[in-house]
Amino acid sequence: MGCVQSFREICDRQKNTNVRLSLPAVCFVWQTAMIILFGVFIRYNEESDTHWVEHRKANNISSDIENDFYFRYPSFQDVHVMIFVGFGFLMTFLKRYSFGAVGFNFLIAAFGLQWALLMQGWFHSLDYTDGKIKIGVENLINADFCVAGCLIAYGAVLGKVSPVQLMVMTLFGVTLFAVEEYIILNLIHARDAGGSMVIHTFGGYYGLSISWMLYRPNLDQSSRLQGSCYHSDVFAMIGTLFLWMFWPSFNSAITDHGDGQHRAAINTYLALASTVLTTVAISSLFQKHGKLDMVHIQNSTLAGGVAVGTAAEFMLMPYGSLIVGFCCGIISTLGYIYLTPFMEKHLKIQDTCGIHNLHAMPGVIGGIVGAITAAAATESVYGREGLVNTFDFEGAFKDMVPTRQGGHQAAGLCVAICFGIGGGILVGCILRLPIWGDAADDNCFDDESYWELPEDEESVPPILQYNNHMRNKDVEDSNFTMEAVRT
Amino acid sequence: MGCVQSFREICDRQKNTNVRLSLPAVCFVWQTAMIILFGVFIRYNEESDTHWVEHRKANNISSDIENDFYFRYPSFQDVHVMIFVGFGFLMTFLKRYSFGAVGFNFLIAAFGLQWALLMQGWFHSLDYTDGKIKIGVENLINADFCVAGCLIAYGAVLGKVSPVQLMVMTLFGVTLFAVEEYIILNLIHARDAGGSMVIHTFGGYYGLSISWMLYRPNLDQSSRLQGSCYHSDVFAMIGTLFLWMFWPSFNSAITDHGDGQHRAAINTYLALASTVLTTVAISSLFQKHGKLDMVHIQNSTLAGGVAVGTAAEFMLMPYGSLIVGFCCGIISTLGYIYLTPFMEKHLKIQDTCGIHNLHAMPGVIGGIVGAITAAAATESVYGREGLVNTFDFEGAFKDMVPTRQGGHQAAGLCVAICFGIGGGILVGCILRLPIWGDAADDNCFDDESYWELPEDEESVPPILQYNNHMRNKDVEDSNFTMEAVRT
Amino acid sequence: MGCVQSFREICDRQKNTNVRLSLPAVCFVWQTAMIILFGVFIRYNEESDTHWVEHRKANNISSDIENDFYFRYPSFQDVHVMIFVGFGFLMTFLKRYSFGAVGFNFLIAAFGLQWALLMQGWFHSLDYTDGKIKIGVENLINADFCVAGCLIAYGAVLGKVSPVQLMVMTLFGVTLFAVEEYIILNLIHARDAGGSMVIHTFGGYYGLSISWMLYRPNLDQSSRLQGSCYHSDVFAMIGTLFLWMFWPSFNSAITDHGDGQHRAAINTYLALASTVLTTVAISSLFQKHGKLDMVHIQNSTLAGGVAVGTAAEFMLMPYGSLIVGFCCGIISTLGYIYLTPFMEKHLKIQDTCGIHNLHAMPGVIGGIVGAITAAAATESVYGREGLVNTFDFEGAFKDMVPTRQGGHQAAGLCVAICFGIGGGILVGCILRLPIWGDAADDNCFDDESYWELPEDEESVPPILQYNNHMRNKDVEDSNFTMEAVRT
Repeated sequence: MGCVQSFREICDRQKNTNVRLSLPAVCFVWQTAMIILFGVFIRYNEESDTHWVEHRKANNISSDIENDFYFRYPSFQDVHVMIFVGFGFLMTFLKRYSFGAVGFNFLIAAFGLQWALLMQGWFHSLDYTDGKIKIGVENLINADFCVAGCLIAYGAVLGKVSPVQLMVMTLFGVTLFAVEEYIILNLIHARDAGGSMVIHTFGGYYGLSISWMLYRPNLDQSSRLQGSCYHSDVFAMIGTLFLWMFWPSFNSAITDHGDGQHRAAINTYLALASTVLTTVAISSLFQKHGKLDMVHIQNSTLAGGVAVGTAAEFMLMPYGSLIVGFCCGIISTLGYIYLTPFMEKHLKIQDTCGIHNLHAMPGVIGGIVGAITAAAATESVYGREGLVNTFDFEGAFKDMVPTRQGGHQAAGLCVAICFGIGGGILVGCILRLPIWGDAADDNCFDDESYWELPEDEESVPPILQYNNHMRNKDVEDSNFTMEAVRT
Repeated sequence: MGCVQSFREICDRQKNTNVRLSLPAVCFVWQTAMIILFGVFIRYNEESDTHWVEHRKANNISSDIENDFYFRYPSFQDVHVMIFVGFGFLMTFLKRYSFGAVGFNFLIAAFGLQWALLMQGWFHSLDYTDGKIKIGVENLINADFCVAGCLIAYGAVLGKVSPVQLMVMTLFGVTLFAVEEYIILNLIHARDAGGSMVIHTFGGYYGLSISWMLYRPNLDQSSRLQGSCYHSDVFAMIGTLFLWMFWPSFNSAITDHGDGQHRAAINTYLALASTVLTTVAISSLFQKHGKLDMVHIQNSTLAGGVAVGTAAEFMLMPYGSLIVGFCCGIISTLGYIYLTPFMEKHLKIQDTCGIHNLHAMPGVIGGIVGAITAAAATESVYGREGLVNTFDFEGAFKDMVPTRQGGHQAAGLCVAICFGIGGGILVGCILRLPIWGDAADDNCFDDESYWELPEDEESVPPILQYNNHMRNKDVEDSNFTMEAVRT
Repeated sequence: MGCVQSFREICDRQKNTNVRLSLPAVCFVWQTAMIILFGVFIRYNEESDTHWVEHRKANNISSDIENDFYFRYPSFQDVHVMIFVGFGFLMTFLKRYSFGAVGFNFLIAAFGLQWALLMQGWFHSLDYTDGKIKIGVENLINADFCVAGCLIAYGAVLGKVSPVQLMVMTLFGVTLFAVEEYIILNLIHARDAGGSMVIHTFGGYYGLSISWMLYRPNLDQSSRLQGSCYHSDVFAMIGTLFLWMFWPSFNSAITDHGDGQHRAAINTYLALASTVLTTVAISSLFQKHGKLDMVHIQNSTLAGGVAVGTAAEFMLMPYGSLIVGFCCGIISTLGYIYLTPFMEKHLKIQDTCGIHNLHAMPGVIGGIVGAITAAAATESVYGREGLVNTFDFEGAFKDMVPTRQGGHQAAGLCVAICFGIGGGILVGCILRLPIWGDAADDNCFDDESYWELPEDEESVPPILQYNNHMRNKDVEDSNFTMEAVRT
């Protein structure tokens, strides 16, 4: 062990965070590839194409308002905010990694959504008449969803990887996501409106496995930067709140027009509300003097939205949503208190943002809740047509029955977990190669490595500089010391 | 007086902000109660239920886009942002109470909206055929509105109460709100689209009365924390702007489909714009060297949205909206300059956020403007149908005439004031009990009491620690001092 | 030169930032003028008037959802957020000018949109039957657009002008905008959905010319304040992200119902995504050690949205959007690295926010892209009806052909540039008068001049105060020094 450690130290000493060639290369090459692939494959669909007017008349659609744009666009914008501001700012809680949190989140999301449009397009929107992918607003939403999976994974390795590693992680993550999604939704015919399984379970385990592969035994060397500061915690609350507020749009964005979107929004709204109360309760109960911990408020309050994702479009019933939120607030907060330290100590999984408590666990719960709710569906509650619409018992699946659907839901959950863990280990191996420019153990959680930082009086409190001097100086010549400080 | 003071000091010394049992207890018990009550009473309405398709065909509604979800959802999300980010961040201006501002706002809003769905549901959405409350997106908006009343009240006691007191305040606040709302809108048949009376007047006086009951003579002991710091003022501007931008959605969220929502949005947009200019004018005019005061920019710029709330859906005319905003910017800013200090000094009302200037006064103005506009309504301006639609002269009120409606509006305003003051005094008495874990006078406006704070170099500027040492040390042994600082 | 400098220094010494009379006067007088003009000219249009119901039946419009409000309102709110939070926070990057950035942005936008409703109304929404301007939600969007032009200009003079100068700048800016817009869209019949020409090119050159007229040779005297600090950079990212996320709404807000809005949103979404990657690439490539520069991430990532503004509603094709974004990310970032310093050094144009790289240049590119895309339009791609709808080949222009339309687009671009430069020089002359209360060269970029600032330990790091003392004190009597610091 000792020798391994010393070996690691040698590696670390050799570590070089200069990404001056690798990062521009990756960005240019991949963006160019995107342009070529978009040129070959991607076109507007009939609702975003100038032929819409003719299409409308041909299908005697009475009005432009019937264009899917008006059903989906408001939800799309809310989801978009969750991806860029929500995820981005939620990760700004570290005292010196706010640039990396919001900046790299921005970079990988912008790349990921392009690649997602292609990958998901090939599986879901390919027009076989001309071999083109036809895109509309729903594709944009799905691309954002796909990116969310990778941003969740980023949470586990926040502060420990280089932007180049993140790009690689996103490239593979999106690819795995698209395949996994196709298997779960189309082959297994599981329903997953809010992506409890497809997005959160997959993304969570994907990130945790990568973090496990990239385990850093000496990470405590950067413990000085692993905490938050007062204002960085307030910035993180911006992320928390925009995720919390727009989650109803997230879970209802691609559900059926009409009652489907309506019901999904209500269920999510309620689940999130009850999560907040139980999170506060547990956070206070387990702290000395009952003081609240910002980490719990920033993260566990969102667990209800994750867990209600699959069942949001079902007849979960308002009280059902509250119960789901109630349990997730408790489980998620306890996860932060007990599980995260345990995983770091015994399982060698370093989970910076605690995505296991916010995404992986609640995602699994969401999958189970979805399976049960589906299996329990009855015609008396849903109505004949309602049952068919909600579970899409049509075409190849017109003989499907709720109980069986429950089984398919469970199967979908297993696929998500397998893809997450398997894919994460695979990608983790790739990311271990010493070519990616990640920081040494004692330079983690520091924007210094990848960002030009402003000389910022606030960043290092002057008295500390002062003390550093005092340490090796005799007080007598404090005059010189003062000189030193002034410069 | 002296003895009273010393007595108070004794009480204060005995004050204990430990809420480790009370806070979790309140959260768990009340959330459990919510689940039970929701289980008994709350179901989806016909537009969010799976039977929607059949309902649609039965009522030959041509398209899913006719589902109320598409009329209301974008406004709902805007209102939701106002409640959680708007109110939450508006209160982060205090230098060391940002966690409490945004965190407790989050907690009480999440609880309040559940209780509001029940209380308002019993009054407005009860289906007598099966005794269930049927909810849809409009109920969610109304729940957010109801919560707004309590968050306004929170502004008056910000930094001086415990989270447990806030929960109690919210429980009673929502209850009073629902009753008052029912009396004003249904029994008196006053119109109040943006809630100038129902939300702002009630919430404002409710909070002020509570603050009056909880008067702290020695609050100056925490004056060191009663100010803002540079970044906390910028955070507060996030709240201001999101409230300001989305206020048109707030005032139009539950108005009539079509022209009603359209007109309410326009009127609010204009009123808010002119408020900004007069606020800046007064702020500059009354400061030495004409410097602007952030407190005014953060708060008074919003007064126009409050004051146009009732009349927003009427034919107030664009110039009418501008006039309302013009006056409110002046009155609200003058309120901050003269009234707030006066109230604290002579009326023993300590109003942390100045809600009297931002909500109570403008709310009353809004009620009066509404009454006048309604009384002045004529068929020549509104058109026959327009008049009936706008004022809902139907059913029991089909013989109503505008002049009389004006009287009813005025009556509604009085009810709102009475409920606010009466309810506030009542609840204030309850909150005076020494069991709620509120902080001592010299510990107000400090997150330390209820939050685990990061050890944060920035929070206490190191030189001060340094000085603290110098105070009781002789300069000679500064070597020891330096040791002390370093640790 | 020396004497000029000394002369300037004299002027500067005489400079007085007291706006206690001028600022309130301007606000009151102009707001009163607005009220009068609104009273004379502005009314609700048929969709926001109570007669809507009758209008609906008369034109047998089947449902309220056909009201333009439901086509435009979500986009309007997104644009509104871009104007107030987007532009406002994007400019908060300076370490001590956050109040001025977000506060003055708020002030001039609130005034500008009222004046814009009148100016644009006279040109576009005048009802000749009664001489009134009839407004609806589309007018609100256009007013926000118009204001955007002035806010762009503000970026160039940020920190160097007084609020009074900004009000004057906005008054003239809006006036020039409305005229230029009328010439470009109505007389020349150029199409400009996202305002690459009308908004960004005009606004960019307008601001740059003003900044050129107000050249400050001794601006380096405030160089200490010209940088950012860690948290101010994070605040600026809030502005960046809200601009970036809602830009698809900006470019699609006033395009044709149906496919027009749908396509514009998709094109903008894609252009922005690819801009992010090339911006990161160039930023990293040109920095020592490949570290990223926040200035580029905050600004250049938005260039793609500007450049795709004109062509967004055309059949630009998804890959076309990616190509536009690809180029703009590169050009804009290089602009920050080479052009901005060059312009300051040799052209005497001090561009605080680098609007030339974010708005002017990309705007011109957008105009050219629009001209080319229009000229290349064919019936085979657009379809007969599609071509007519997209380019509005109706009425006086029913014989128009794409190639000729391309020429008109180019002509429009020239008009925008001329108005920007000409107007800017004119207004710059006015703003040079010594009556406006702008700050001296050594007081620029400092909120101190126009804002009551909180005494803020963080603002001036205490050790510096300490050093200032040490400078003129002998270390021996440090006891006294300590006294001095404590107070």
